[in-house]
This record gives sequence, C-alpha cells and structure tokens, in this order.
Amino acid sequence: MGHDEAIARAAVLRPIAEIAAKAGIPDTALEPYGRLKAKVSLDFAAEASRRPEGALVLVSGISPTPAGEGKTTTTIGLGDALNQLGTKTMICLREPSLGPCFGIKGGATGGGRAQVGPMDQINLHFTGDFHAITSAHNLLAAMLDNSLFWDNPLEIDPRRIRWRRVMDMNDRALRAIVNGLGGVSNGAPREDGFDITVASEVMAIFCLARDLDDLQARLGRIVVAERRDGSAVTARDLKADGAMAALLRDALAPNLVQTLEGSPALVHGGPFANIAHGCNSVIATRLGLTLADVVVTEAGFGADLGGEKFLDIKCRQAGLKPACSVIVATIRALKMHGGVAKDALGAPDVAAVLKGAANLLRHIENMRKFGLPVVVALNAFTSDTPEEQQALTDLLAPMGVTLVPCTHWADGAAGALELARAVNARIAEGQADFAPIYADDLSLTDKIETIAREIYGAAGIDVAPAAAKRLAAITAAGFGHLPICIAKTQYSFSADPTLLGAPTGHRLPVREVRLAAGAGFVVVLAGTIMTMPGLPRVPAAERIGLDAEGQIIGLF
Amino acid sequence: MGHDEAIARAAVLRPIAEIAAKAGIPDTALEPYGRLKAKVSLDFAAEASRRPEGALVLVSGISPTPAGEGKTTTTIGLGDALNQLGTKTMICLREPSLGPCFGIKGGATGGGRAQVGPMDQINLHFTGDFHAITSAHNLLAAMLDNSLFWDNPLEIDPRRIRWRRVMDMNDRALRAIVNGLGGVSNGAPREDGFDITVASEVMAIFCLARDLDDLQARLGRIVVAERRDGSAVTARDLKADGAMAALLRDALAPNLVQTLEGSPALVHGGPFANIAHGCNSVIATRLGLTLADVVVTEAGFGADLGGEKFLDIKCRQAGLKPACSVIVATIRALKMHGGVAKDALGAPDVAAVLKGAANLLRHIENMRKFGLPVVVALNAFTSDTPEEQQALTDLLAPMGVTLVPCTHWADGAAGALELARAVNARIAEGQADFAPIYADDLSLTDKIETIAREIYGAAGIDVAPAAAKRLAAITAAGFGHLPICIAKTQYSFSADPTLLGAPTGHRLPVREVRLAAGAGFVVVLAGTIMTMPGLPRVPAAERIGLDAEGQIIGLF
Repeated sequence: MGHDEAIARAAVLRPIAEIAAKAGIPDTALEPYGRLKAKVSLDFAAEASRRPEGALVLVSGISPTPAGEGKTTTTIGLGDALNQLGTKTMICLREPSLGPCFGIKGGATGGGRAQVGPMDQINLHFTGDFHAITSAHNLLAAMLDNSLFWDNPLEIDPRRIRWRRVMDMNDRALRAIVNGLGGVSNGAPREDGFDITVASEVMAIFCLARDLDDLQARLGRIVVAERRDGSAVTARDLKADGAMAALLRDALAPNLVQTLEGSPALVHGGPFANIAHGCNSVIATRLGLTLADVVVTEAGFGADLGGEKFLDIKCRQAGLKPACSVIVATIRALKMHGGVAKDALGAPDVAAVLKGAANLLRHIENMRKFGLPVVVALNAFTSDTPEEQQALTDLLAPMGVTLVPCTHWADGAAGALELARAVNARIAEGQADFAPIYADDLSLTDKIETIAREIYGAAGIDVAPAAAKRLAAITAAGFGHLPICIAKTQYSFSADPTLLGAPTGHRLPVREVRLAAGAGFVVVLAGTIMTMPGLPRVPAAERIGLDAEGQIIGLF
Repeated sequence: MGHDEAIARAAVLRPIAEIAAKAGIPDTALEPYGRLKAKVSLDFAAEASRRPEGALVLVSGISPTPAGEGKTTTTIGLGDALNQLGTKTMICLREPSLGPCFGIKGGATGGGRAQVGPMDQINLHFTGDFHAITSAHNLLAAMLDNSLFWDNPLEIDPRRIRWRRVMDMNDRALRAIVNGLGGVSNGAPREDGFDITVASEVMAIFCLARDLDDLQARLGRIVVAERRDGSAVTARDLKADGAMAALLRDALAPNLVQTLEGSPALVHGGPFANIAHGCNSVIATRLGLTLADVVVTEAGFGADLGGEKFLDIKCRQAGLKPACSVIVATIRALKMHGGVAKDALGAPDVAAVLKGAANLLRHIENMRKFGLPVVVALNAFTSDTPEEQQALTDLLAPMGVTLVPCTHWADGAAGALELARAVNARIAEGQADFAPIYADDLSLTDKIETIAREIYGAAGIDVAPAAAKRLAAITAAGFGHLPICIAKTQYSFSADPTLLGAPTGHRLPVREVRLAAGAGFVVVLAGTIMTMPGLPRVPAAERIGLDAEGQIIGLF
C-alpha cells in the first residue's frame, strides 16, 4: 500500500450530511450517494445563487514538469488551512477520469495529508457523472449514424462528420477506426475514432452550463457535421438534445465530498485543459461562492493554459470575478526551467533556481495582466535548501509578491497556514480588478494573437492556410464573438515542449481550428494534441484490486 | 405524456429506508442513492444468506409476440398482490438497458399500475451498475490491445481474439469495425466490434457471482484470446481481474427500489436471454429469499429460453430450488400461435385460441419436466371474450393447471389477487421437486440434444463441422462439465421464428459455439443472434427530454 493510500485508509470521514450542514446546505437539498458522497440539488443551487458572493481564489501553476507541481494538493491544503483560520471556505475541484487511474497516474484526489475522500469511490465511478457524459455523447453519435443509415434526411455530407465517439478509458486502439463494416445492415463504412470522455464537447458544455435550460440549449448547438454546402448540422437538427439533457440531468447537480480534515469540497466535471478549458463546473463554483466566504479552485496545467482559460472562458461566460491568484511552484521544477537535467534536480543550485524563475515571473506578470494579485505557493520538498528558498523570496519581494513555502502534503492544513494568511490578506486588500485579456468583439485571429503575445511571450502567430479558411468560415457563420481555447503543450510557453524557462521570439503555429459551438469557444490547435491516451507497458490497472476485506487497493 | 408515464408521475413513492425497514433490511445495511434507491450492502447480503430461505417463484411466458406478453408487469402485479394478501414477498427483476430505452421499446420498469419506481432514474443510469460493467469489460479490452502493442509477451495470436468491446447503446455502426488504424503509435489494425453491454460476459458473470471472491475468480477465467497453439489467454493472464473486480465492487451490491404499491423490489443485473442466461443477479435472488417468504422473479423471453436457462444455469450454479412456475399468456398471442394474422388478432376466435394453446401446453409440460407446479397467468386485454377465456380454462383443467385471468396492468395488486392465491396454494402444497433437465456429466453435445428434444420438441440436432470441432476443443480444455446456453429466436420452439405453435420434427442447427469460461456456460448459437441492436428510423430518443420543471418525459 502506498503512502497516500495508507493515509486515506486511516482517515475517518464524517457522514456527508454533517459536512453539508456545516457548509450551509440543508438536508432537503442533498441527494445522498452512499454515506460519504452527495449531490446538491439544482433547485437549491439556483436559489442559493441569488445570495451575496464570496471571494474566488484561482490556484494555478508554473509550466509543469511531467510529475506535476502539486496544484491539487495545494488547493486542498489551502482550503483546509483557510477553514482552520476560521474563514469559511469551499474547495472546488475537477472529477478524476478513469483513464489515467488505470494508466500511469493513478488516482486524482490529492495526496499525502491533502486529499479528498472517499478516495476509492471518487476515483472509480464517483456519482456516475462521467458515465452520463459518455452516454450522452455516444447517443448523439449513434443518432447521427442512424440518420445516415435511414436515408440521410438531413443531407449530411459523410465526408464532413465532426463528431467522434468517447470512452472513459486509455485505449489507443480506438483512436482511429473504420466503423459501419459488415454489410448493408450495419451502414456504410466511414472513418471514425474515440476520444477519452474528458475531451468530449459534452464535458465542456456540462462544465460551462449555468442550469438545465442552458445545458440543453448548448447541447442543441453542437455542430456534428456539415452538408455539402458547408452548412452546419446540429444536435438539435438530429433531435438529440432532449434525450442528452435527460441523460445529464441528475449528473448536473454538483457533488459534495470532504477533505481528510473535514473541509467541504465540490468535485464536479473535469474537462481537458488542452482542447477544453480545464476546470470544474460553473454550477459548482457558483454554488460554492454563495455558501462560503472563499472558494479555492484549481485550473489544469500551467497558468498560461488552464489559468488563462479559466479567466478568459469560464469567468467570462459565467460572470465570475476572481479575487486572488495562487501560483504553485517547486524548486525542482524551477531548476529544470533553469536548465538542470532531470537526474540532477536533487542537488542544490541557487543559480539554476534564479534562472528558471523566469518562468514563474512571466506567469506572475500574466496574472497581473488579468488584474489579479498573486501569491506564490512554494510546494516544499525535503531536497530544497534554505538558500534556494531565500533567493526566490528575495527575487519576488521587490515585485510585492509573497513567496510562501508550504508543507500541506506532509502536514495538512498546518502546512498551509501561512499561505492561507497571505491569501486572506490579498483578498482583504481588495485590489483585484479582473478583466479578460481580450474583448469579445476582437476578431478570432486577433484574439489568438493577443494570447500568443501577451501570455506566451510570442513574437506572433503563423496561421496555416486551412486554419485561416476555417477561422473565416467560423466567423462568417456567426461565431466570431466566441473566446479562444488554445490546445498546446503544457510544458512550455511556446508550442515546443523543450523550450523551458521564459522563451521569447517564438511564433505560435495555428495548425487547425475547431468550432465548439455548444461549449461556446473556438479550439485552436498549436501542436499535436492527444485526445485518447494509451496505457503504459505496465498499466496501473495491474496493481489495482481488492484486499481480503473487499477494500480497493492500488489506486496510488 | 403516455398512460404509463402519467401513472408513474402521479405515484407517491416512500423513502427507500422505509421500504427497506419493512423488508427487514436495517438502515446500516443501506447505501442510499438519492432518496428513492439504495444498494444493500454485500456484508448484509452475505450474513443474511445464512438464514432460512423463502419460496422461489419463476415468472416466464409462452413464446412471445414482438410486443411481449407482460412478464414484467405480471411479476410486479403478483408481488404486489402477494404482499396485499399478507405474504411477505420480494420482487426480483433485471435492470433496464439504455439501448432499448432510446430505441423502440422505451423504458423497462413495467407498465400501467404494475410498475417499479422511480421510473426515470431506473431507466437512465440507475445506480450505475451497467456503466461499471461497461468499464470493466472495456478495461479488459484495452489491456488486451495494450499487451499486443507492447511486444505481446503473452504471445496472443492476433487472429484469435475473442474479446470485443461493449457500449450500453443501440449503435449498429459499431457492430463491425477495424481498430488500431492511424500508424504505429496506435497499434496494428485488426477486426473488432462492439456488443451492447447486456451481451457482455462480464454482465453474465456479475449476475452469477455469489460474492466478491467468486466475482474476481470468474473474471479471471474469462478467455480473451488464444495463442497459436490454441491455448487460452485469460483475463488473469493479463492481470486485469483485480481492477475489473474493483470497478464492479460497489455495483455488485443489489439495488432496492419499490413498486407503485410499495412492495420492495431488488432490481439488479440484466443479461441478454439469448447469448446469456436472461435473469437478475444471484446475489439479489438469494438476498430476497432470506428476507421474504416468497420471491417472485422473471426470466427473459419464453419459458423455453429464459426459463430453461434460469433453471439449468442459474438455479444449478446457485443451488436454488424454485417452488412454482408462472407462465404468462395472452389470448392475442395464442391466436397468433393458432395461425391468425397480426391485423386480425382483435377479432374473437375460440378455435384459434385452442389451436395456439399448443404452444402454452408445451411450455407447461416443460416446466413439469423440471419438477415444477405451474400456474398460468392470463394477462387480460379488453378485446378478450369470456368464451375464449373459458375455452382455455376448460383445456387446462384436466391437466390440473389453473388459468388465472389478471388485470394488474389496469388494477394493480387488486387485479392479481387470484393469481397470488393460486401461487400461494401451489407453494403450500409443496409438490415442487426441482431438478435440472440434464446432468453435469453429460457430454456437451448430449446436453444440447437433451434441450432440443425435451424442451424444443426437436427431432434432433445438426452440428456444423466447425461447431463440433469447437465442442471437442472446449471439452478437451476441461470445460465439458459446464451447462449450455442456447441462443436462438425467442419466437418459436425451433430456430425458425416463423414456426409458431408447437412445432415437431424440426432439427436444431448448431452453427457456432463459444466458451464463456467466466460465466460458466457454453454458448450455442442456433441462428443469427444480434448482439448490437440498431436504432429505428424514428428512435424513442427523439421524444425523450425535460419538461419545464426539469422532469424527464418520453420514457414510455
């Protein structure tokens, strides 16, 4: 049994109704899923959203290493610490996907003493939300192929089908398939493929919808294919939006769980941070803001990807105004950005830390461009030296940015109290003046260029001819007002994952453009983005199982 | 809104904890899923299974018409009526599949005043069991392809892969696919395809497992492929059995819901009645028998298919001994078996009823061969005449078989009280002396021949050469002791769906044989069996949606 698993198993979780009561959610608004999980009714969420709102804190990070810098644990640790200080705080997180659980990563419920639970249930199935999203997505695919099969009344061009299928699994064999084989009763063969469920536009819609009506309207707007004249065929044209909304109705109510220290946490939705916007549902965040004085939430990948999208897509669409930004960094990752090789990261190297801090500094500048005060959470490792930490503190001080070393992984809330105090101080100062980085009425191309120059530090963008044509077509079809969702590597500000630190002079390649009319953004691919991961040679699934008492083991 | 839907919406369901208490399930054994559904803990089920057992009543039917003869409503109506008479009764049913919900059939929770609820939730997702089964099945498929991808250490012959993928959807485009396209990083292309989840061997295993240990052992025995030397590669060889069991752990606890009249019902599992055994989980049935004096349960299709498999597979494996068999018939279906055309079924025709009754008589004989007393439930229609019913009563009386007209669809329990009294009388007489129709040690071929001759009235079997070879190989591999699961049309005793009534002289073709080593039976295909349905020209999904209050409509 792993360290994280041992801690999770030793923890005594409280009945979820007790956690709910403490958070201000009445018993009548709870739909229990077992003893330790509950959905909060949409009716209550709607009613609650008319109350005054708390302060929203975004936890994001520097450009990450493959191991991750600890955004989830920092979000949980900060939430626990704020609650311990007496600030009524709600934590908002994404739900884990089954795919990575069985792949390399294992579970996604935090780690050490900064975890949400019940860990096994949240990681496997949870309250069924991802299954509902998978079903809704694939029902639309089945209805699309069914319409083609029965005389194609919508005159869909079979060469221009934009809707693939999804599965919540790492299954590379399904990336590219030919379906409809086997004869006339199975339809006509065509190219198709599966993405992992978190890459589904239904997932993005689910996370951006304000309520059931908005959900169904967005589902109806999904463009699944085009006709020969280029006109769009939507989910509503297929009459699929009603049944999809019915499949998603119960799932849309946010899930309440708890941290190992008893803080309430809303864990709801989980879109990719590359081809989607990478943060939990709007409904959960808004509910949290009506219940708590502070909501701590996390965005995927670095502040340039998940962070930018959280601000430019989610906050824009949902009318949210964050009060503070926390950027998570580690000494090890800064050294990597400073040019140190992976196997030498354990050795003290103040110069490398200071060189690599260029990455951190640009993320700080970026968050300030959005009008947000910044606190840097230094997720401490035992290999960090006092000299390295001090050098970093001294570097940030002149900018008015506090660096707070944190040990929540080892110590829980106690390890994040200073961070919590710094965040509370920024909120109390009330200096935040949030605005998206670009206006709705800028052209799509100018929006891409703004993100590239302002956030990525690029010298410009290079739009491939086919992508330019598609941008023009999307604008002509009336979608020019939508925000941009850039899909690029998370490891660099540029589109080249090997360009660490804070590169300049690079140009952002715009290779492909996709309209997500239901989600309400335009996806711009600046690289090869994997939408269906594969399993490693020895998948985590091989070690997952049941012990003699029927407890699930191996999820860490 | 349909008639059934209006009744379901008007019904006031009790909190599930109240239903559980009445059924003898303590609150500590309940895992609530919302207010109206709960899982009963496996620990309680295991402990309870040591208590004395109630009487098991199997509800099956004559060879059905495409519309179905009302087995589910009769099972519910009979359970309600027994409870109303003071006989403590548990109803055990299969869970609905999403596929048919969106296809032609609509929901599968009964109809009229004989329904289980909450109808919308049971039909859509329920407690997530089918999603868990889908995930477990597809994880095994992903691990299989992953093993091929990473140097194929188990030396799987890619030409002999037996494990397809599944989806809980009617999606004909996925019946036959080629996967692994797109280059070396996606694997090597190979033929593949999807079945609907209810056709998965994991579903059959789920329904036959006695407990978690048995579940994992069965999962491990699944044969997914063969090597070049013909030896079997199993799920255990792939080290997939542990993770699959972990995915299924919570699902394996049976689901408690209620009828519109407040009877408790365990709705759990739902395998196909053609390539699988067609009845709810062993765990649910055994739990019901420890809690109630009578358990009423249903088997899919006619008594020759679901009924025979219930007795020869489920009862054999689980050590169950039914006390009484109920065969559901309708005047309309008997007329059809008597040669009346579909559009003339509404006209009175005593002669056709008596001629078609040959079908009913053979089903009665068959159940008696298993040692079971029989009651015939005549599911009454307004088009039935007193003369037709009387003729049938007179036909059955000399055989000592009671014909009981029932109106539970229109009247609920009140419409099935006579049926309940007849069933109680048969139980009280204690004449049942159950034994399977064939012994374990008979050869596989002789088992098939026994079913064909004794149950189907066939003159013999014709085994295709490839099937004979496979039967020999399965026997040589040590699986000759397994029972047989015949997949054939449900519309006829023969393999020809147009041969109605009680055909004789026909021969059963054995076209293909498949080993289900985990489920513990050998599937014999006597016809083309559809394991992935398609959607009709106008799918039910088009009318399913949400009303202004967020209620799901269109499921009937």
